[in-house]
Amino acid sequence: MASSSSLTLSQAILSRSTIPRHGSAQQLHPASASSTLSIPSFSGLKSTSSSAAASVSRRRAAAITRLPIRASAAVETLEKTTDTLVEKSVNTIRFLAIDAVEKANSGHPGLPMGCAPMGHILYDEVMKYNPKNPYWFNRDRFVLSAGHGCMLQYALLHLAGYDAVKEEDLKSFRQWGSKTPGHPENFETPGVEVTSGPLGQGIANAVGLALAEKHLAARYNKPDGEIVDHYTYVILGDGCQMEGISNEACSLAGHWGLGKLIAFYDDNHISIDGDTEIAFTENVDTRFEALGWHVIWVKNGNTGYDEIRAAIKEAKAVKDKPTLIKVTTTIGFGSPNKANSYSVHGSALGAKEVEATRQNLGWPYEPFHVPEDVKSHWSRHVAEGAAFEAEWNAKFAEYENKYPEEAAELKSIITGELPAGWEKALPTYTPESPADATRNLSQQNLNALAKVLPGLLGGSADLASSNMTLLKMFGDFQKSTPEERNVRFGVREHGMGAICNGIALHSPGLIPYCATFFVFTDYMRAAMRISALSEAGVIYVMTHDSIGLGEDGPTHQPIEHLASFRAMPNILMLRPADGNETAGSYKVAVVNRKRPSVLALSRQKLSQLPGTSIEGVEKGGYTISDNSTGNKPDVILIGTGSELEIAAKAADELRKEGKAVRVVSFVSWELFDEQSDEYKESVLPAAVTARVSIEAGSTFGWEKIVGSKGKAIGIDGFGASAPAGKIYKEFGITAEAVIAAAKALC
Amino acid sequence: MASSSSLTLSQAILSRSTIPRHGSAQQLHPASASSTLSIPSFSGLKSTSSSAAASVSRRRAAAITRLPIRASAAVETLEKTTDTLVEKSVNTIRFLAIDAVEKANSGHPGLPMGCAPMGHILYDEVMKYNPKNPYWFNRDRFVLSAGHGCMLQYALLHLAGYDAVKEEDLKSFRQWGSKTPGHPENFETPGVEVTSGPLGQGIANAVGLALAEKHLAARYNKPDGEIVDHYTYVILGDGCQMEGISNEACSLAGHWGLGKLIAFYDDNHISIDGDTEIAFTENVDTRFEALGWHVIWVKNGNTGYDEIRAAIKEAKAVKDKPTLIKVTTTIGFGSPNKANSYSVHGSALGAKEVEATRQNLGWPYEPFHVPEDVKSHWSRHVAEGAAFEAEWNAKFAEYENKYPEEAAELKSIITGELPAGWEKALPTYTPESPADATRNLSQQNLNALAKVLPGLLGGSADLASSNMTLLKMFGDFQKSTPEERNVRFGVREHGMGAICNGIALHSPGLIPYCATFFVFTDYMRAAMRISALSEAGVIYVMTHDSIGLGEDGPTHQPIEHLASFRAMPNILMLRPADGNETAGSYKVAVVNRKRPSVLALSRQKLSQLPGTSIEGVEKGGYTISDNSTGNKPDVILIGTGSELEIAAKAADELRKEGKAVRVVSFVSWELFDEQSDEYKESVLPAAVTARVSIEAGSTFGWEKIVGSKGKAIGIDGFGASAPAGKIYKEFGITAEAVIAAAKALC
Repeated sequence: MASSSSLTLSQAILSRSTIPRHGSAQQLHPASASSTLSIPSFSGLKSTSSSAAASVSRRRAAAITRLPIRASAAVETLEKTTDTLVEKSVNTIRFLAIDAVEKANSGHPGLPMGCAPMGHILYDEVMKYNPKNPYWFNRDRFVLSAGHGCMLQYALLHLAGYDAVKEEDLKSFRQWGSKTPGHPENFETPGVEVTSGPLGQGIANAVGLALAEKHLAARYNKPDGEIVDHYTYVILGDGCQMEGISNEACSLAGHWGLGKLIAFYDDNHISIDGDTEIAFTENVDTRFEALGWHVIWVKNGNTGYDEIRAAIKEAKAVKDKPTLIKVTTTIGFGSPNKANSYSVHGSALGAKEVEATRQNLGWPYEPFHVPEDVKSHWSRHVAEGAAFEAEWNAKFAEYENKYPEEAAELKSIITGELPAGWEKALPTYTPESPADATRNLSQQNLNALAKVLPGLLGGSADLASSNMTLLKMFGDFQKSTPEERNVRFGVREHGMGAICNGIALHSPGLIPYCATFFVFTDYMRAAMRISALSEAGVIYVMTHDSIGLGEDGPTHQPIEHLASFRAMPNILMLRPADGNETAGSYKVAVVNRKRPSVLALSRQKLSQLPGTSIEGVEKGGYTISDNSTGNKPDVILIGTGSELEIAAKAADELRKEGKAVRVVSFVSWELFDEQSDEYKESVLPAAVTARVSIEAGSTFGWEKIVGSKGKAIGIDGFGASAPAGKIYKEFGITAEAVIAAAKALC
Repeated sequence: MASSSSLTLSQAILSRSTIPRHGSAQQLHPASASSTLSIPSFSGLKSTSSSAAASVSRRRAAAITRLPIRASAAVETLEKTTDTLVEKSVNTIRFLAIDAVEKANSGHPGLPMGCAPMGHILYDEVMKYNPKNPYWFNRDRFVLSAGHGCMLQYALLHLAGYDAVKEEDLKSFRQWGSKTPGHPENFETPGVEVTSGPLGQGIANAVGLALAEKHLAARYNKPDGEIVDHYTYVILGDGCQMEGISNEACSLAGHWGLGKLIAFYDDNHISIDGDTEIAFTENVDTRFEALGWHVIWVKNGNTGYDEIRAAIKEAKAVKDKPTLIKVTTTIGFGSPNKANSYSVHGSALGAKEVEATRQNLGWPYEPFHVPEDVKSHWSRHVAEGAAFEAEWNAKFAEYENKYPEEAAELKSIITGELPAGWEKALPTYTPESPADATRNLSQQNLNALAKVLPGLLGGSADLASSNMTLLKMFGDFQKSTPEERNVRFGVREHGMGAICNGIALHSPGLIPYCATFFVFTDYMRAAMRISALSEAGVIYVMTHDSIGLGEDGPTHQPIEHLASFRAMPNILMLRPADGNETAGSYKVAVVNRKRPSVLALSRQKLSQLPGTSIEGVEKGGYTISDNSTGNKPDVILIGTGSELEIAAKAADELRKEGKAVRVVSFVSWELFDEQSDEYKESVLPAAVTARVSIEAGSTFGWEKIVGSKGKAIGIDGFGASAPAGKIYKEFGITAEAVIAAAKALC
């Protein structure tokens, strides 16, 4: 076994890193976050045993003999015992879900009861994974897009032997501090790939996972070394299907020909408000065919195990299209009085109906009991999984011998370890560098970083030439050129964000970025919040960040957006003022792999300011110029982004009049908050209450910085359509306004 | 002519009411906003002349003779002169767009050049409108969903004789204070129905407009009085088609069978990033068929006038389905070097290319010139439009005679005049009323209001039974029961919001409400922002407004959402604490017809508190209890929504210890901001810096209220999955925490 064998161990270490969970706790300084990304070594994995390997061989043999039977679709020829065991396993899943929801008196039993058969087949017969290393790189990915049905996944993880979901975890479903929260959360439960629940996000994440696989496979696989090779499976429901985000993401999946994406559509005709007839009568099959998918219909998802198996086989055979397997199921299958009704969707069955369901399905066991034969049947997955991983590790070692450069690069993508000295690639600027829009400076950074960060890829929602996001040395990621790194998302902001979450959560070293106009974060905010919650370090490149975009007018001019992201937990809102600050923002964004970053960038040209620096950005707020002594300026002028140069101009004027003026760049409130009290006092001394801030956006929240005696200059109404300079003047975002406010205060 | 003849005049007055535009100016107290809703009288309209009527008759005759020709699709039989004039008119539209963009050196000439033929046919041959009263109730509605192409609409409004778009307005395209902003804005330009530009919004607004027509027609039309009868036309582009919101809205349009919705899909194969081949290869026709639409393909949208005419005829003949007319066009048609390329999408052509295009299309005129024959041809629309309106007014007078009750109700919907005394329907509560969740109290209000407000209709995104939004006395608005008022939106939050904008902007008296969990405002934020910008008084009923929802966990628990809406211009964020405050919130929401309201409502039961009132809510912040004298409490405790009772409990304890404590409900920051300084001082005296706020959400922004010496208790990280009481305790949202903070301050 070569040194390559524990890629996955490193990955696991990374995923469980000591970075504190977001939440009420202080967030880390990016520099210290960075240090956790330094994986100690790339040493051996010990879990593979020969018995495990033998177990795999036996299973494979079984699979081979079983396949022809499935292909012939001759259900009757299957041994009765197998069917009985499958059914027993399926009912185990159903009752684990029923019992957990019942104990919590909260949750969604309907989906697990209906989807248990497809769940069983996926986790017991189809998917490759290693329960003892949920982060094994080449595992098949599974996403429960209909996240409310998470007891399905918890039951499957439990049966498969994942450490995160022991019996006691099932018994503490939806309780404080448990590993089994009310919706699947990747950051709580190893084995859960993404965070789903908000409908449609999961299917879009899955498109991102499948994109990542196709991309990495195209870049790193060799004819004699198919080192990246896994499927992405999803279960989505009617709710996901109705959401626009799923249409966006699925249109892209079809366009890109993601053949290894296989989605199960739980077609149960019930949503919370009742029968889908009341609001959802479109023809989903036809829509997916229009989107370029292969579509299969399994008419009996409740007991048609062989139908499900055959559909998966067919789906795998279609290599140039993603597949939608519409599986018609009965929500709450087995419940004699509640099945096929919305009442089983989101509430516990109640003791009486649980009993009736036990009777109906012939289930004599105590709550949470897994029958011995079911337990024994599933027990092989631990050894089998270890063997899958060991086999892959051996394959990787061979690959590494033959292709050391590619292996090293892929390894860094798998572990998330950033190449040493990567930050030296960041461009720097002097006050003599030409004035430029930060969107253009952003492109310089992206192109510089793409050379040193093998996992950097991304694109724009049809605004590449406005957002300035093209990587010039690469072509487009397309169906036939999946090795390329410019992703064309089309005008699909919401899908774009969620796809990027999937890419980021596929491998720690994949660093997806995506772009649109800042105001259109409104279209993708739900995905951005999931980035923050699920610790997906997506970089959001948001240009045209104020009224400075000019003539497009108020529909395109962000106002409240900076405030709205400053209020969101675990996300970094960065508004750089010039070249050095743009480079600093990228440094912060790259380092923060468990916290997404939003870069607000200008359309208009900005001067390169004296005093700005990458190091300054890392502190969130810092002094760029000061003619005061003893930490006692007469007034502090505070600006962000395009308004920092206005603050600097105002300072020049005030200094001419003899004032002691400090100019502070406030590029990231979150990073400043994380600094020591001493540092904060050195920038914003408590004794100096004469403070003026200027920012071309809502003043909401600025009282915290300028204090009740200070003045926040901003815009609290909507913008207007006119040339940018005119709007700035009309809205009073001017040096004159800053000077007047400063004079009134000191 | 009866007294009914100026419905539309009143409507026009209302639309131009004296309520100041949102923006940096102070917003009005709802009471004063209310007063502007009192339309003085319902008196006569004078614009109808007999010559106008004659003109209509002539046009109708022409239409009748032309129809058979169109039906036979025999293009050659059309008179050459007609064709020449049409082409000249079409080229006039093209050059008005070219010239305006050129003069502004900013804008989007490509779409108007490609879509001029369909634009001409719609405004010159098909649509019924009155240029001199853009608010005539029964007009056909037109929405340019691809709003960047607004010069198309401005050119058409100019030719048709709308006062808002004179030659000087075209010449001030995209300039400060003009009536011709960079995207269509209903609040700037009479004749523009909705505010579009953010892609996909317009088509969804159009679904709302068509829903409103179908609903009102079903409620008010009689076999002998078809008083509501108009079409809704839309032009949307590839960008709109890619957005998820359009799929959501179009799926509903198909489900509802909105037969009078006719959408033109400008199929030009170009988006900003280039050929749509790079990101958009789905089969749109098939997708729309799957969504239940009738689909027609016009292969030559550049010069195939008769194809377009025939398609519209066919679309009108299909009465049970909306129609998508895919019109294949060339973006920038006529420009010899830039047509069919992205370079013509969003930039001026440049002097040289303008000249080349003039040559190419044989256009000898000066910029902004409308040839006399074209002008003369279009001039009939003023008289014709007046005649349309007069004819309708006469019809309405007849209707009113026969059906006075229905007429009175419809009139109130048309004018937006609220029935006298409507607010008496609002329920009131005493501290003895049973504790209840504000979501349930909300339902009591909705049901009470539905009885007195004929224009109130709405529903939920598949959460009616959780959001508690069903109107019990009505059935579901469905294809076959369009007269009902419960709208089932399915899990389509974004489409829902935009559809409600369309409903609100259809008629001033339509008051749409829509609902989901508060956290899922993230899915619909772009539509909500357009509500605020376009002055659409939608009521957003947002339940499950905090960690108080419990076990569903952090994906479902809003944190930053209150702050994010408080930062948004022209929207009211209301978080009522109990029954009286819920009623007060509804009063405010109903009164504010030009400002949307967001009601954040609890899942959990809340006590009915002493001291709360409808009048208090109208002031935004007010004292609910106080044992201090001389406006000098020892400490002020401030709460909102479900945390107000926590503040009240803490006050009880502190008072037992001898403290003088004021408890303030801060239900709406925006309304409080609008109060007099004197009032503000009476609630939050500047001298009292000992202030503690408590709110189960982000503390972002609270410094403004509690001051730098006060303490804001809140949650600045994500929530957790557990029973609500447990989460409140673990996150420190407790009376104990308030007491401790208060003691530390006084």
